[in-house]
Amino acid sequence: MAKKIITFGEIMLRLAPEGYYRFVQAESYGATYGGGEANVAVSLANYGMDAEFVTKLPKHEIGQAGVNALRRFGVKTDNIARGGERVGIYFLEKGASQRASKVIYDRAGSSIAEATTADFDWEKIFDGADWFHFTGITPALGDNVTAICLEACKAAKEKGITISCDLNYRKKLWTKEKAGQVMGELCKYVDVCIANEEDAADVFGIKATGTDVTTGTISHEGYKDVAKQLVDRFGFKKVAITLRESISANDNNWAAMLYDGGNFFFSKKYLMHIVDRVGGGDSFGGGLIYASLNDYDSQSTIEFAVAASCLKHSIEGDFNQVSVDEIKTLAGGDASGRVQR
Amino acid sequence: MAKKIITFGEIMLRLAPEGYYRFVQAESYGATYGGGEANVAVSLANYGMDAEFVTKLPKHEIGQAGVNALRRFGVKTDNIARGGERVGIYFLEKGASQRASKVIYDRAGSSIAEATTADFDWEKIFDGADWFHFTGITPALGDNVTAICLEACKAAKEKGITISCDLNYRKKLWTKEKAGQVMGELCKYVDVCIANEEDAADVFGIKATGTDVTTGTISHEGYKDVAKQLVDRFGFKKVAITLRESISANDNNWAAMLYDGGNFFFSKKYLMHIVDRVGGGDSFGGGLIYASLNDYDSQSTIEFAVAASCLKHSIEGDFNQVSVDEIKTLAGGDASGRVQR
Amino acid sequence: MAKKIITFGEIMLRLAPEGYYRFVQAESYGATYGGGEANVAVSLANYGMDAEFVTKLPKHEIGQAGVNALRRFGVKTDNIARGGERVGIYFLEKGASQRASKVIYDRAGSSIAEATTADFDWEKIFDGADWFHFTGITPALGDNVTAICLEACKAAKEKGITISCDLNYRKKLWTKEKAGQVMGELCKYVDVCIANEEDAADVFGIKATGTDVTTGTISHEGYKDVAKQLVDRFGFKKVAITLRESISANDNNWAAMLYDGGNFFFSKKYLMHIVDRVGGGDSFGGGLIYASLNDYDSQSTIEFAVAASCLKHSIEGDFNQVSVDEIKTLAGGDASGRVQR
Amino acid sequence: MAKKIITFGEIMLRLAPEGYYRFVQAESYGATYGGGEANVAVSLANYGMDAEFVTKLPKHEIGQAGVNALRRFGVKTDNIARGGERVGIYFLEKGASQRASKVIYDRAGSSIAEATTADFDWEKIFDGADWFHFTGITPALGDNVTAICLEACKAAKEKGITISCDLNYRKKLWTKEKAGQVMGELCKYVDVCIANEEDAADVFGIKATGTDVTTGTISHEGYKDVAKQLVDRFGFKKVAITLRESISANDNNWAAMLYDGGNFFFSKKYLMHIVDRVGGGDSFGGGLIYASLNDYDSQSTIEFAVAASCLKHSIEGDFNQVSVDEIKTLAGGDASGRVQR
Amino acid sequence: MAKKIITFGEIMLRLAPEGYYRFVQAESYGATYGGGEANVAVSLANYGMDAEFVTKLPKHEIGQAGVNALRRFGVKTDNIARGGERVGIYFLEKGASQRASKVIYDRAGSSIAEATTADFDWEKIFDGADWFHFTGITPALGDNVTAICLEACKAAKEKGITISCDLNYRKKLWTKEKAGQVMGELCKYVDVCIANEEDAADVFGIKATGTDVTTGTISHEGYKDVAKQLVDRFGFKKVAITLRESISANDNNWAAMLYDGGNFFFSKKYLMHIVDRVGGGDSFGGGLIYASLNDYDSQSTIEFAVAASCLKHSIEGDFNQVSVDEIKTLAGGDASGRVQR
Amino acid sequence: MAKKIITFGEIMLRLAPEGYYRFVQAESYGATYGGGEANVAVSLANYGMDAEFVTKLPKHEIGQAGVNALRRFGVKTDNIARGGERVGIYFLEKGASQRASKVIYDRAGSSIAEATTADFDWEKIFDGADWFHFTGITPALGDNVTAICLEACKAAKEKGITISCDLNYRKKLWTKEKAGQVMGELCKYVDVCIANEEDAADVFGIKATGTDVTTGTISHEGYKDVAKQLVDRFGFKKVAITLRESISANDNNWAAMLYDGGNFFFSKKYLMHIVDRVGGGDSFGGGLIYASLNDYDSQSTIEFAVAASCLKHSIEGDFNQVSVDEIKTLAGGDASGRVQR
Repeated sequence: MAKKIITFGEIMLRLAPEGYYRFVQAESYGATYGGGEANVAVSLANYGMDAEFVTKLPKHEIGQAGVNALRRFGVKTDNIARGGERVGIYFLEKGASQRASKVIYDRAGSSIAEATTADFDWEKIFDGADWFHFTGITPALGDNVTAICLEACKAAKEKGITISCDLNYRKKLWTKEKAGQVMGELCKYVDVCIANEEDAADVFGIKATGTDVTTGTISHEGYKDVAKQLVDRFGFKKVAITLRESISANDNNWAAMLYDGGNFFFSKKYLMHIVDRVGGGDSFGGGLIYASLNDYDSQSTIEFAVAASCLKHSIEGDFNQVSVDEIKTLAGGDASGRVQR
Repeated sequence: MAKKIITFGEIMLRLAPEGYYRFVQAESYGATYGGGEANVAVSLANYGMDAEFVTKLPKHEIGQAGVNALRRFGVKTDNIARGGERVGIYFLEKGASQRASKVIYDRAGSSIAEATTADFDWEKIFDGADWFHFTGITPALGDNVTAICLEACKAAKEKGITISCDLNYRKKLWTKEKAGQVMGELCKYVDVCIANEEDAADVFGIKATGTDVTTGTISHEGYKDVAKQLVDRFGFKKVAITLRESISANDNNWAAMLYDGGNFFFSKKYLMHIVDRVGGGDSFGGGLIYASLNDYDSQSTIEFAVAASCLKHSIEGDFNQVSVDEIKTLAGGDASGRVQR
Repeated sequence: MAKKIITFGEIMLRLAPEGYYRFVQAESYGATYGGGEANVAVSLANYGMDAEFVTKLPKHEIGQAGVNALRRFGVKTDNIARGGERVGIYFLEKGASQRASKVIYDRAGSSIAEATTADFDWEKIFDGADWFHFTGITPALGDNVTAICLEACKAAKEKGITISCDLNYRKKLWTKEKAGQVMGELCKYVDVCIANEEDAADVFGIKATGTDVTTGTISHEGYKDVAKQLVDRFGFKKVAITLRESISANDNNWAAMLYDGGNFFFSKKYLMHIVDRVGGGDSFGGGLIYASLNDYDSQSTIEFAVAASCLKHSIEGDFNQVSVDEIKTLAGGDASGRVQR
Repeated sequence: MAKKIITFGEIMLRLAPEGYYRFVQAESYGATYGGGEANVAVSLANYGMDAEFVTKLPKHEIGQAGVNALRRFGVKTDNIARGGERVGIYFLEKGASQRASKVIYDRAGSSIAEATTADFDWEKIFDGADWFHFTGITPALGDNVTAICLEACKAAKEKGITISCDLNYRKKLWTKEKAGQVMGELCKYVDVCIANEEDAADVFGIKATGTDVTTGTISHEGYKDVAKQLVDRFGFKKVAITLRESISANDNNWAAMLYDGGNFFFSKKYLMHIVDRVGGGDSFGGGLIYASLNDYDSQSTIEFAVAASCLKHSIEGDFNQVSVDEIKTLAGGDASGRVQR
Repeated sequence: MAKKIITFGEIMLRLAPEGYYRFVQAESYGATYGGGEANVAVSLANYGMDAEFVTKLPKHEIGQAGVNALRRFGVKTDNIARGGERVGIYFLEKGASQRASKVIYDRAGSSIAEATTADFDWEKIFDGADWFHFTGITPALGDNVTAICLEACKAAKEKGITISCDLNYRKKLWTKEKAGQVMGELCKYVDVCIANEEDAADVFGIKATGTDVTTGTISHEGYKDVAKQLVDRFGFKKVAITLRESISANDNNWAAMLYDGGNFFFSKKYLMHIVDRVGGGDSFGGGLIYASLNDYDSQSTIEFAVAASCLKHSIEGDFNQVSVDEIKTLAGGDASGRVQR
Repeated sequence: MAKKIITFGEIMLRLAPEGYYRFVQAESYGATYGGGEANVAVSLANYGMDAEFVTKLPKHEIGQAGVNALRRFGVKTDNIARGGERVGIYFLEKGASQRASKVIYDRAGSSIAEATTADFDWEKIFDGADWFHFTGITPALGDNVTAICLEACKAAKEKGITISCDLNYRKKLWTKEKAGQVMGELCKYVDVCIANEEDAADVFGIKATGTDVTTGTISHEGYKDVAKQLVDRFGFKKVAITLRESISANDNNWAAMLYDGGNFFFSKKYLMHIVDRVGGGDSFGGGLIYASLNDYDSQSTIEFAVAASCLKHSIEGDFNQVSVDEIKTLAGGDASGRVQR
């Protein structure tokens, strides 16, 4: 029977001009849904896992369409609280060449940002669950949501459910100080910590030496050091760090490192021609959880997670629409992109 | 030289599924901009008038695109305050046959709803202006916006500028009691009152006898009575009431009445096959203001305003994209829709 | 707890040129999914019922997309057999004015048409179910599928589950003789029979006197006679007949009659301006089942079913995307299509 | 073997905003090709006739796309001269309800408008031909094109080929005086004259009494009188007049009359809900030629031509995309628009 | 006078999601037509040759649209048999970066796959023809189609028509054993053999040493060896082998080798940024036939064929839409892609 | 207060197939507006300058849409003369990989090409202006337009307004001889000369040694020499030359050199992945004028202009839609294209 994973957070309406049009040129917006933890749930459902996403959404049709987007790809939605006023929105303009992609958030006042602990019955939600995942975006929505996260973490811990957290610092939601304080508290419950090349520094002031994210130089030694500090401070069982080198808005290098408290495992590095990079980190998380729940060894785990998220960069939308077989083929070495007839 | 009209209110991003798709089917949204007073300004700019729209919009690109939408059609935007967090949004699902159109508002917290009297210098704005127009939607945004409206009305009155107001009751924004109290105060400054077949009852409890808006029966005598009561209570110089008979989401009858304090003038009635009815009332206001500023007689005024708004129902989007010539042709009796080669 | 309904049949990929384009003009096809019994399941899921659709679909992505289309709108898909070669396809060209809509079927060899009784475990499928629905299209797919239907009917009957069948004669799938013979056998198990103005004659040679479907004249007495004959021959508890008068491809009248073995109940008649009429009959079935399972009286049942299917004609795609509230509003008399703000 | 028809004139690039958008709203244009005589050729090719269109088009890709548009629907293009600078363009804005459709011509300087008699070898072109068709638009392009028409008429007459001409007056191309003089000369060669309710008056000053094209009142007696005058003056063997009553841009009545020099034959009248009315008259011509070449009797001829053009109004684009069977079904009385499965 | 080429095979409806969308994301499919031999015919018609495509297609509109797609680009279609039930379909999902393109075939039961030798009169078809082309896909459709191919080859051989065959192995249509046996028989009639880097091994077990198609390493010596073996075994006059190196789904190297029985000619190698690679091999065949029929020398022939197919990779759809001039410019050394004003 | 810039020239309707479709595949055209000097004006308005574009456009809606396109982005249009017959058109097909982009001009007879000196009152137009810009395309439209340019130059010179000219040679509009003669005359008034790597040679026969535009080799010394010759011959205060190296239709290198009469300043070189290169040169001009009017030093000026135009290549349409901040970020060294959240 498939392992059961609960993810909790916000799912937003994503409004994006077609192709490479800028916001001021747009006459229409592609309308999809996405959000850190929802993206992880879709990844896992696509891999055949029993994935469920928990959030709060308004009762109206814009909220319902968010539920439908999840159901379409097999994510369970039975514990989504319904109520509140609005669906958070983010506007996404896709960059090209030297022009960066741009995100405008319009998420204040969303149903989940206004939710309270009374909206969620974690005892019931975690019944039969194997894994709980959330990101640093969710507690950043407000103290009320931090309180929900804390309740969830405690309930999960009591039930012996593995907890993973992607630090995912968002500077528009909170300060580094506030983030450090809140995430420090929540990380006490976390078993698996996921971060990108900047998060540890932003949230906890833990810096990777020898890295400049704008020039794209990355030092392996620096990352090892960061991972070790994270484990030392919070007692994580595992730390996974994604390593993105941004050549241009179209071309990125992508790799990651897994630290299991003992050894460091570096993945292959992929040069990606990007279709859509939003959700790239989330698809890494999805791959990592899948591999962990299926008892992959550490090297295979990091290769699977990186191959999964490498493929995500070739997919439109927040959700990673790839299969376990496709990931294994890539992780196994076939990156040729030859036609599958 | 063209007469100068100032309109003040909110302009929203309008997100509408293509054609007759429902919200839960939408994979993209047409993205245009509209709002009661902005729509009036575009009507007037299209007629060659010097029309300006005043509001507050965020500095980001979603706000800028709102400015651009107005500029594109010749509306002046020099006094739009820039700042705040978000552009109000409304989602629009177009109805068909027995299925009604549906609007979901997501406008709380918009820049204009959070604006203060400090954002607008009415002395400067009204310099050289001939007419000021607003609707009942704007004060409904909050006491702070009511205060702005009041300042604007006082400044306009002092300069001898004609003031028109479309009552436009929106039950999701305020109660009838609150509306009645606030609009009662503002209407003291108003010269020309515009209303649809329900507004007078909703806002002021003034009822048209013999009318049932869902069955579409309309009594001329009832409307005369309403108009007379409005003039008696508030001292309006003119009252114009639009008379919509809703046969189905596709087919409506459309007419209006003008009361100049002395006589009642009824327009022709048009059976319209509807392309987009949002903004229909605003296009009536635009036509009424144009005709008034160009010294049309009362019968010609109401015929022009009704013909203008009849044509609006054949236009996609909030904005009325028709010319004075097209309106005159229709008002003059040619409703055949023959190809103009 | 919501009542559980099982429907069984084929879901096809529907390929339709945009708007009113003809097949020979099409450069792209809108790609949705639909089929008689799947459409009923979506209707019921949209009304909050626990609806499940059973079929067989290939394992590839075109098959998966069919599963996803159902899940998106809340239909359970756990008992869909996966295997076989292809998804049935139908091409749909929307008619206008005097030009009829056109359907080209390309469904031979689909997974469900090649399925066997071994693909479905009806004991398990019907566990906890309250209602079973199928249409005459499904046994028409082949003797193997007839055998599956027969097994399903027997299993349902044993469990005391109500069985409904929409006769839905398709002349391209089988002859009238074959249809009469097979449906005659299956109808022994059916409690509720649904038919349109032609089915009873096509399948069983039972004719409504005084009706000409091309001229659109319909005699109430004739339909009563047909319903009575159907009950007499097959012992149905209820017979519901839809009455379509085709004025043009754009405009139809729509009504229905319910016969409960004792009395005849005629619904209101609606003049519909059609957006998409495919699935109109299925939405009637969905409404009828909903009303029956919720213990509506006979008049309310037929009014609900007709209002539901009237609204369907305003919806793009096979699936009826309306709510119980919307149907009740229409059945309650508000057909004005006024904007819901 | 199929009868061979030559048509000669201009084919233009037609640029039309999607749906009901106005020119000033358009961000893209649907790009098709059309023109009076080209439309007739496509009609006839769709009916299985050996139809060929003669014109001049530039060698570049915009010209080639015009050739391709004809070839796609089976029209022969072997005698299209290639050269010159530009393809004539017309911009088309579709009207709705009381708002008229609008055409902006941008055709000056097109290859055919600059062509000379040296571009066409009528001896070769007419080899094996049975019918020659042109319209009044073509000589209106300039004296050089009139000269080509005259050569063609003379060559056709010598070979005993039937000649038809649709008067098709275009006020933006020439004056009524010039039209009357040129068409008077060309009509000496014409066997079958086609006109709409205004052409005879515009071109020859022959007026239908009792008709007002904007109100839509049409007097049968008046048209008989016009047809008789036309035959008397030019010796046409047949005169066919289309009778359009314009209720709105969406709804028109459509009928026609055929005068064979002896008797008058009036068709049924159709109320059409219009998808695209451009090319409506041309599709009438196409139907008339088909029926004539297939020896239909006069009443059947006019019924076929009117049914063909009635169906055209339900088709997007200039070209009539219907089959002989579809026309016969409609002419035979089935206007119900029921789905053809 | 242009040389006449007959190609024979299947033309399929190609259904492809827009841009880089995956099948499970698609809400619409671009609908074009293509197939190995049809693609060659379009190439040749675009080069001004007298190209004709022979197949069997249903009489309905989906079949007719296939005919129209060919006619549009100047391919003769007079000998296409009409009948049978369906048009073969292939679904195409475009890959990106490390994600491969994916093809799902739905072609069983198509009209051509069910055709018999009675459907084609090769005496008549080959009248005046200079070249006959088919691919290994066509006999793979079934023994009946193999029989048609054999008849065609014999008829062509008798008339002294040059025969070319692209081996084009499709593993979903037949086994390597069956392919080897059937193609071995047909290749006895073939003058010019075309293959890609895998075909010779798949069909005849003839392997290119030192090549790994997934890593993209290609050994010139290995290919020479393969070509020589092919000529030795079947007596081909010429063998042309395309050499694709797949860097990613977006970037491929492309080159080819021609062996004329005496010498080996290698083309330049192009690094291509791919728009659409389906039909790439067919466009190579089209270029090869064009160059051969126009008596290019061997080096020029292989350069022309490779440049033609290099350009194809920048074209959407199966059909190669380029001119002889464009190919010559590229083969001549200008690969800069500078704007042609 | 913002500096005021006047630009004068033609604005054309740009019709471009979607994505990488070729002209012969297009079923619709994206419809935007653009032209050398209009593009410069939009750049400057987007940077917050007071930019105005002067031209002549027809009164009809296709002309009005051109005005609207400019107004939308804040360009002043008060001195656009209205009249004449047509809007110039250019058809644009976007190239990819080795396939070049293609432009087909259809601009003869446009309103501006037919304009006379009487259409423009330069005294009024230049009131308060700081800068005047035109390109070599404008005088190429005809002697009448050359006369207008000359009047404008003289008026500007008298008022002490800085004049810039982009040589922009278009071989389809005039010969090199004619261009040299006319531009030689106009350049007497010019202060700032802009040219690409070919213009100086085409117009004035001044050649950059060591450069082959098709191979993309560029010699710095050669360009210095060209700039020096230009200054020597015409007395320009500044000469700016853009240096494009075309690797393929998708990938170009981009840099530029500024010569201020004393020193030579070379910018950084950018490798660009191109979205749309039309208007690339114009965006360089816009950046150069902005930097000049804001008193940037020479190195900063050329870096700003090149960064601005580098970003333009990532923008759809002729107009450069970027902000001063975005340009400064790129010029400052961040070309990573990382998401801006």
